Amino acid sequence: MALLNYLNTTHFDFGALAMLAPEAKRLGITRPMIATDAGVRAAGLLDKALEAWGDPASVTIYDETPGNPTERAVLAALEIYQAQGCDGVICLGGGSPMDLGKAVALLARCGTPLAQYDPLAGGRDKAKDIAPLIAIPTTSGTGSEASLGFVIIMEDGRKLTFASPLFIPKVAICDPELTLGLPPAMTAATGMDAITHCIEAFLTPVVHPPAEGVALDGLRRGWRHIERAVADGSDRQARWEMMMASTEGALAFVKGLGAVHAMSHAAGRIEELRLHHGTLNALFLPAVLRFNADVCEEKYARLREAMGLAPGADLADAVADLNQRIGMPAGLAAMGVTEDHVPGIIEFSQKDLAARSNPRRASADDYAAMIAATM
Amino acid sequence: MALLNYLNTTHFDFGALAMLAPEAKRLGITRPMIATDAGVRAAGLLDKALEAWGDPASVTIYDETPGNPTERAVLAALEIYQAQGCDGVICLGGGSPMDLGKAVALLARCGTPLAQYDPLAGGRDKAKDIAPLIAIPTTSGTGSEASLGFVIIMEDGRKLTFASPLFIPKVAICDPELTLGLPPAMTAATGMDAITHCIEAFLTPVVHPPAEGVALDGLRRGWRHIERAVADGSDRQARWEMMMASTEGALAFVKGLGAVHAMSHAAGRIEELRLHHGTLNALFLPAVLRFNADVCEEKYARLREAMGLAPGADLADAVADLNQRIGMPAGLAAMGVTEDHVPGIIEFSQKDLAARSNPRRASADDYAAMIAATM
Repeated sequence: MALLNYLNTTHFDFGALAMLAPEAKRLGITRPMIATDAGVRAAGLLDKALEAWGDPASVTIYDETPGNPTERAVLAALEIYQAQGCDGVICLGGGSPMDLGKAVALLARCGTPLAQYDPLAGGRDKAKDIAPLIAIPTTSGTGSEASLGFVIIMEDGRKLTFASPLFIPKVAICDPELTLGLPPAMTAATGMDAITHCIEAFLTPVVHPPAEGVALDGLRRGWRHIERAVADGSDRQARWEMMMASTEGALAFVKGLGAVHAMSHAAGRIEELRLHHGTLNALFLPAVLRFNADVCEEKYARLREAMGLAPGADLADAVADLNQRIGMPAGLAAMGVTEDHVPGIIEFSQKDLAARSNPRRASADDYAAMIAATM
Repeated sequence: MALLNYLNTTHFDFGALAMLAPEAKRLGITRPMIATDAGVRAAGLLDKALEAWGDPASVTIYDETPGNPTERAVLAALEIYQAQGCDGVICLGGGSPMDLGKAVALLARCGTPLAQYDPLAGGRDKAKDIAPLIAIPTTSGTGSEASLGFVIIMEDGRKLTFASPLFIPKVAICDPELTLGLPPAMTAATGMDAITHCIEAFLTPVVHPPAEGVALDGLRRGWRHIERAVADGSDRQARWEMMMASTEGALAFVKGLGAVHAMSHAAGRIEELRLHHGTLNALFLPAVLRFNADVCEEKYARLREAMGLAPGADLADAVADLNQRIGMPAGLAAMGVTEDHVPGIIEFSQKDLAARSNPRRASADDYAAMIAATM
């Protein structure tokens, strides 16, 4: 049975940051923790958020979120949240601060350990409540501001995906102004994350037509504007469109994701490499599009339509060409992945939540072949 | 600023009616009023709902909803609701029982008179709360199960549209099984209502890309399946697709509607004619598509794509042809509208909430011309 569940409220436009104080008031947040990272602070975006908040004395700041956030960082932030008597979380940043903030908001209300909420271990219903959460993205890719998931690298090395409608931030504030200073390489990598969300969510066999409509609209915008945003970061329309593609991608992936994300999560957990999630998605996408092609013929026609490609155009080639034009690495090897890493990527890909909703079931050999093609 | 607000939960599939009892329990409804009408009861659908509920003794039934519900009927139902100590409303039917049920749920919590909640008279914020509401559509057209609006003919003759996120039913149960017995004429008229929702919502200039994606997906389904559903009511796939088009149309019209709905509301308030809303939409749609054409060039290209029409095909002609194929009346005159009615339709069209979001502003003369073209 199809469950069509849309529960988010998003303020979206240049200047939307002005909604922070009134929305926090509406949600009853008086002593927020702002979960962010050093890069966001260095870019001056934390100052902008504090200015929009208006009362810096009431704010606790946690700016030590690592890229691909860890359980250790979540617990450190939680300790500060509790010590400071915070009553809500404002996530400010890309996917990492948003995911960390979601975890803190959950643990603040429902308690540790985090692993008990793992949906693959029957933990989905253990999350009963979450502290009020406002998400303010500063990149256009993750879409975590509108999504029901977050991903944490656990102490035992697993990269776990947690998912519940509870984890959708009560309010998202999407202000493309905050992305104007994002460098070209990050614009490209996060933009490919958004595009991959739209494509993978559309392709999962879960029945959710509204989410598919949203995915195609997001893909159309992302595909047509990513090169402009990479080439000229001050192109306001391109920034607006990329942020919309990102939030639409996340609205769409209530349907689930697929093998691209399974492999990106699996490769993203290699701690010594700290690989960027969006870049991994961009690289894995062509191989997965080739792998799924036979079972997605009708849907591929609609993807081509949204992307403005000729009927019958090769989707995987189109993505690979785009990757090259926007400066993505040539392959996994160029990112530092070696043959030694491959067995681990295969193993964790198969265990990943996203693997379950790929339109075609992938065996260990299939993953090995897709990884080899992406090296 | 764009406000992207999706707040509904929909169970959708053959057999979804089984979700009624558990969802009512979740919402705390123990003594529901079922708001329905004589036709729904005669078709045996009330019995199906009572069976799904399981405890008929706890249910109060109001089955006197008129087509195009009136304030008088709302107050009659409210009196029974209060006398019976009901604690929630289950709307079962097409648009009329759903709109009546929403009004009862509002008045049960916030009090009479209904007119104080008129958004055009500053009443939007006066609605603070609403009794728990479950909507079960038995036609595929209105989409009221997923929409934030309801329409009531007031004692003073106005047809008012009330709108608030509060009025989105907490849960919608969309079971295409309930539409298998709908006669061809009603299938056609309600189906054109859904198609019009998708088209008008997509065309309004309000910025809401996710809703536009949903609108196009709904249009694609509705346009490709309405003839099958009309020709063979037992075609389960066509019934499923039409119900999805209907619910997607309503998800889309959070953006607002346009001149088609302004005129349909204005003509629908003529009490001696009791004209069907979906049929009116079908008839007005070609004239409005011609009126808007110059300001919607880019969007018309996307409508053609969703409908599978050739590039450059005339949208208005395509709709008029479809109307003929599915047995819609030849024009307003054939429905009993006379020249005497026209000044009233013009007057109330201009005052209607939907008139404000038409992509091109229509004057009294413009409305006169569109009505004349539809006679």
